Amino acid sequence: MKRLEDYVLTIPDFPEEGIMFRDVTTVLQDADGFSLAIDAYAKMLEGVDFDVIVGAEARGFIFGSVLSHMFHKPFVPARKPGKLPREVVSQEYELEYGTSSIELHSDSIKPGQKVVIVDDLIATGGTVEAIAKLVERLGGKVVKLCFLIELAGLCGREKLKDYDIGSAIIYEGK
Amino acid sequence: MKRLEDYVLTIPDFPEEGIMFRDVTTVLQDADGFSLAIDAYAKMLEGVDFDVIVGAEARGFIFGSVLSHMFHKPFVPARKPGKLPREVVSQEYELEYGTSSIELHSDSIKPGQKVVIVDDLIATGGTVEAIAKLVERLGGKVVKLCFLIELAGLCGREKLKDYDIGSAIIYEGK
Repeated sequence: MKRLEDYVLTIPDFPEEGIMFRDVTTVLQDADGFSLAIDAYAKMLEGVDFDVIVGAEARGFIFGSVLSHMFHKPFVPARKPGKLPREVVSQEYELEYGTSSIELHSDSIKPGQKVVIVDDLIATGGTVEAIAKLVERLGGKVVKLCFLIELAGLCGREKLKDYDIGSAIIYEGK
Repeated sequence: MKRLEDYVLTIPDFPEEGIMFRDVTTVLQDADGFSLAIDAYAKMLEGVDFDVIVGAEARGFIFGSVLSHMFHKPFVPARKPGKLPREVVSQEYELEYGTSSIELHSDSIKPGQKVVIVDDLIATGGTVEAIAKLVERLGGKVVKLCFLIELAGLCGREKLKDYDIGSAIIYEGK
C-alpha cells in the first residue's frame, strides 16, 4: 500500500539549479493520495480548538478549503497583493531577492478568533510568518500552522518557534 | 434562513470603474455560506459520470478541491504560466487588453478521461475555454463546466455552447 510520501515527486533544479522541488500535484492528481494528505492534515487538527482556517495562496487554498468544509469552519484566503476586493491589511516579507507581501481582508478575522493557517509546504517560513502577523494585527490568535511538507534544512520551524507547527512529511535537506 | 446568493457581496467599480465585482470571499468566510456553495456545486454533478476535476487558478482551487475530495476524484490544478514544475501544455487566451495563458501538466489528464472543470465565476468564458482546449489536447473529454456565479451579460455561455454548463447564481448584467 502506498504511503503519503510515495505520492510526492521530487524534481531536481526547479525552479532553479540546486533546489529540490517537492511537487504536491502528484499527490492531488491521485484520489487516494489526496485523501491521505487530507487525513494527515485532519490528524494535526485533532483536539485543536479553532474558529477559522486561513489558506495561503495558491496551493494552501487546495488543502485549506477541504479542511474548512470538513470541519465546518470559515475559509479565509491569504492572497497576493491586489487580489482581494475589499479593505485589506498587508504584510511584507523577505524573499531570497527582494520582498513580497500578502494580504487578508480586514473583516476576515474577528478579535479573539482562534486561527489555523494552512499551506502545502514550509521552507523558510516567511510567507506563513507574514500571515500570522496579519492574523494577530486583526486580533486573532494563531493556534496551529499546518503543512503537508516541511523542508527542515531551511529552518522555518526555528523562525516560527512561537507557534504550534504540524507537518506530515519532513525532508532533512533544503 | 439565508440563501446562497445572500452571502455574495457586490462591489461596484472593482477592479476598475463600471465593473460590478461579485465577491465570493464573503461566501467562504461563513461556514454555512461555504457549505451552501459546495452543496450547489455537488448538485450540478449529480448523475454526471466523471474521472477528474480540474480547478482554475486561484479561486477555482477552493471549490474544485473540496469537490474532488468529496467525490474521491483526482484534483488537477490549471495554473498560470511557470507555476507547474513538470512538462506542461499551454494555451493562450484573450483578455480585454492583450493575452494570457494557462497550463496543465501533460500527464494530468489521460486519454479518454471524463473531466469536470470548476471555477468560481464565468464572465466571458475565456479562461475556461482555454482549459477545455488543454483537456481536449491531452485526449480528455470535458463533461461539465461548473461555476458558482454566472455573469450572463458577458455571454460566456454562448462562447462555451458546446459544453454542459452549470451555475448556481446568475446575474443578468456584466
